[in-house]
Amino acid sequence: MPGAGKTAIGRRLAARLGLPFRDADAEIESAAGMPITEIFSRYGEPHFRDGERRVISRLLAGPPVVLATGGGAFADAATRAAIKRSGAVTIWLHCELPTLLRRVAGREHRPMFLNADPAEVLQRLMTARHPFYAEADVTVHCTDESPETTTRRVQDAVDEAVRPQRLPVGLGDRAYEVVIGAGLLARAGGLIAPVLPARRVVIISDAAVAPLHLPALRAGLLGADFRVVAEITVPPGESSKDFSRLQEVLEGMLAAGLDRRTAVVALGGGVVGDLAGFAAAVAMRGVPFVQVPTTLLAQVDSSVGGKTGVNLRAGKNLAGAFHQPRIVLADTDTLGTLPPRELRAGYAEVAKHGLLQGPLWDWCETHGADAVAGDRAALTHAVLESCRLKAAVVAADEREESAEGGRALLNLGHTFGHALEAEAGFDGTLLHGEGVAVGLGLAASLSARLGHCSQEWPSRVIAHLAAVGLPARIGDLPRRFTVDALMGRMAKDKKNRDGRMRFVLMRAPGDVFTTGDVPAEAVTALLRDEGALG
Amino acid sequence: MPGAGKTAIGRRLAARLGLPFRDADAEIESAAGMPITEIFSRYGEPHFRDGERRVISRLLAGPPVVLATGGGAFADAATRAAIKRSGAVTIWLHCELPTLLRRVAGREHRPMFLNADPAEVLQRLMTARHPFYAEADVTVHCTDESPETTTRRVQDAVDEAVRPQRLPVGLGDRAYEVVIGAGLLARAGGLIAPVLPARRVVIISDAAVAPLHLPALRAGLLGADFRVVAEITVPPGESSKDFSRLQEVLEGMLAAGLDRRTAVVALGGGVVGDLAGFAAAVAMRGVPFVQVPTTLLAQVDSSVGGKTGVNLRAGKNLAGAFHQPRIVLADTDTLGTLPPRELRAGYAEVAKHGLLQGPLWDWCETHGADAVAGDRAALTHAVLESCRLKAAVVAADEREESAEGGRALLNLGHTFGHALEAEAGFDGTLLHGEGVAVGLGLAASLSARLGHCSQEWPSRVIAHLAAVGLPARIGDLPRRFTVDALMGRMAKDKKNRDGRMRFVLMRAPGDVFTTGDVPAEAVTALLRDEGALG
Repeated sequence: MPGAGKTAIGRRLAARLGLPFRDADAEIESAAGMPITEIFSRYGEPHFRDGERRVISRLLAGPPVVLATGGGAFADAATRAAIKRSGAVTIWLHCELPTLLRRVAGREHRPMFLNADPAEVLQRLMTARHPFYAEADVTVHCTDESPETTTRRVQDAVDEAVRPQRLPVGLGDRAYEVVIGAGLLARAGGLIAPVLPARRVVIISDAAVAPLHLPALRAGLLGADFRVVAEITVPPGESSKDFSRLQEVLEGMLAAGLDRRTAVVALGGGVVGDLAGFAAAVAMRGVPFVQVPTTLLAQVDSSVGGKTGVNLRAGKNLAGAFHQPRIVLADTDTLGTLPPRELRAGYAEVAKHGLLQGPLWDWCETHGADAVAGDRAALTHAVLESCRLKAAVVAADEREESAEGGRALLNLGHTFGHALEAEAGFDGTLLHGEGVAVGLGLAASLSARLGHCSQEWPSRVIAHLAAVGLPARIGDLPRRFTVDALMGRMAKDKKNRDGRMRFVLMRAPGDVFTTGDVPAEAVTALLRDEGALG
Repeated sequence: MPGAGKTAIGRRLAARLGLPFRDADAEIESAAGMPITEIFSRYGEPHFRDGERRVISRLLAGPPVVLATGGGAFADAATRAAIKRSGAVTIWLHCELPTLLRRVAGREHRPMFLNADPAEVLQRLMTARHPFYAEADVTVHCTDESPETTTRRVQDAVDEAVRPQRLPVGLGDRAYEVVIGAGLLARAGGLIAPVLPARRVVIISDAAVAPLHLPALRAGLLGADFRVVAEITVPPGESSKDFSRLQEVLEGMLAAGLDRRTAVVALGGGVVGDLAGFAAAVAMRGVPFVQVPTTLLAQVDSSVGGKTGVNLRAGKNLAGAFHQPRIVLADTDTLGTLPPRELRAGYAEVAKHGLLQGPLWDWCETHGADAVAGDRAALTHAVLESCRLKAAVVAADEREESAEGGRALLNLGHTFGHALEAEAGFDGTLLHGEGVAVGLGLAASLSARLGHCSQEWPSRVIAHLAAVGLPARIGDLPRRFTVDALMGRMAKDKKNRDGRMRFVLMRAPGDVFTTGDVPAEAVTALLRDEGALG
């Protein structure tokens, strides 16, 4: 609102945060080459709002700044949405009418107050705009205290708002936290130092992720006095999860001087996390490990729980170790650089967690599309709730030793998914999450065929996955599979016991179970009906 | 003694044990083609004893039998030694004079009683022979009870005598036993079944060991209804401890149908145990593991404690896992097939345990040569006491995390030893134990140079190692080493902390410690003085 103090507080806040201060109105006038009043009078408000939105979006897409916007910007629906999408923290300086009136005294020559009662003008604006301002991330009630005091209170409120969520994974003396939030890479050193024996790391990343995020992570580590002993980059994709790459990474770490107190930091998706985690597990029989997942798949699933490994010819993840990270930093900013197909593929694991958890499935059906479209709040919720579920399951059954249920439940959809992936040959034509999506459809269908749930569930599961753009049936995939090949792959599943195949099936979202009581004929018939050949 | 019942009890015992019964005197007569009395009268006693010794040695070198020998055989020093070396269990049927007199009544026509008082003859023999008979493994006091009763008592005493020693390794829910004794391979199935989830195994061995011991192990497993899912044989030697071999073993196990409840059994020396153990640690993120060490090195050291791994270019055992076995079967019979050089090399670790433990060092100086010469009792003692020490150290510091002392003490001599081995290139010119032997000499010398012990200790350590035929100084080795190369290797030692080299040093046997307080110049000077170049 006019007189709320956006310039006075904004400048002071920028100084405290060490960031530049920018004023949207000034930027607009400079871009347009004329005063705002003239844009208004010459082109009208809609034209002004479009230009304002472009200028604000450009400023928020650049390096961090403190930005003051005109009071009408956040009241404009499209501009408000653009600001939210950007991931900016929005602050509402909330003043009562008497305060504002005192502050605008002397500004009666301004266009908005010409020939009007300022109290009336302000009251009308407040009534119109406050409902939208209330959507700001942070609201600070401002009084007649000094600008310094207000600025300190604003900074505290911002700190509180951007403070990451911390989820504990309860594993006794190997307990750790999953930290979820924005801007974590830049603060990585300070976040990980308390849980490591020494400020020395080896960073493992892949050639797709490193150019995007390694500079920020490196700066965040060096700023906290860390020594980066080595940065090792592997080619992106599942083919890096093999024995020769593992050996190469190990030789590289050791040659660079890694010792038992040097931590291995995985910066990337599931492939990098699994490979780097396995390398950390076996280098000198185990060194500390930190996960910095940069994909949705890794943030909602693979970075939490300590499963690491590489693939063998006989199947996926058949060689590996349980090696819990000391901490997981899920920086939601990194999801902004993710290709849409990868974001969707990662979402398949969120949908799986929804089916395991129950209420989260309802959220998926309502908000999943927002997450897949890149909405920050939806993605943060998806990561947070997925990690919460996974942490609880892992804490109860770290090494997947429960006779029934337990950690094996996280394999819902994966028996089929792994078989599809293995057949596709890990060449990128089928992403892990896409295999899981089809697997979820198949698991729900198998559950219905065996009488564990009604046909409603496979229908809803398949409809939801299709709605967010994921394949949900074998026939949706761009290549063909034979029943025999898929059955052969499933016969090697790690869950199998005494030669008998085991599946994870559902009665309803939130009611999922493991069973060995599945006739092979039911599975072959399902695969055939769903699009496999033979 | 005549009348003690060797034939009557021997035949009954053989029937109970399901073994053939053989009578040494009958075999001798058959081999010589004449009665014993005639051999005696024609060629004299020394000639007879030589022949008797050959026949007994031949019989004991074959498959298990119950063997009755003439009463003079065990009183002959050379024959007694040959029997002990064979690993046979010796039984003394101990009767009092009146019992013997009653039983020999009616045999007065035998040569030994001709023209003599049987009581006097027997008393004279008893006085001469009982001191030697007392060296038998088992003594059973026989009375006038029925032969069946005596046989049962003999069998119980034999069972007791050959019952293997069981040493617990206290590691909470991963606690296990080291079983030490003769004939364990043949009983392997029954011994390991109680600690495994299923009667299914994959056996990993090497091409040198498999022909000698795999048939016995396989029979011992099949006899207890085990299924041997696969037998995988790797080339003998350190070069098999590499990544490509590990991958090959893993692919082989998985292709054969290993699942999470199938145990991996390592049959062989340290290389096989380390490789198979690492494969078991990472296959499906961990399957049960059983150690069946067949070398002295493996029985006294590498099979106990859960350290597994392979070598990297950067050094030995730099990639690996802690994966405790479910049980260790140290069958001392397998040591009989070991080449003398390997037996000596394994003994280096016994000497190391002696230095760590104290009283065991005194035993080494007195009996070590017997062990290296293949004496069964000495070897069994060496294995038992080594495992006892190692089990205690491992239980106190499983993952080598103690700030000082702890499991790292087991590395006495290994900082130098590993560097020598790495430089030699693992091509068989320098066995691990030979490197350790030189390392023990160097560690003792360094301790003396730094003032931690008197010069007496390096002198005694080097003298003892040399006495049993081990290299004890760098100059004893068949190739040259440079100071720089060895220092470079040691700079990569896993014990090093924050870039600082750490050593295990001694004040006296039983008083050994870890320290980072060793000037590099002291080490280089020592290496130069002990025979390294540069």
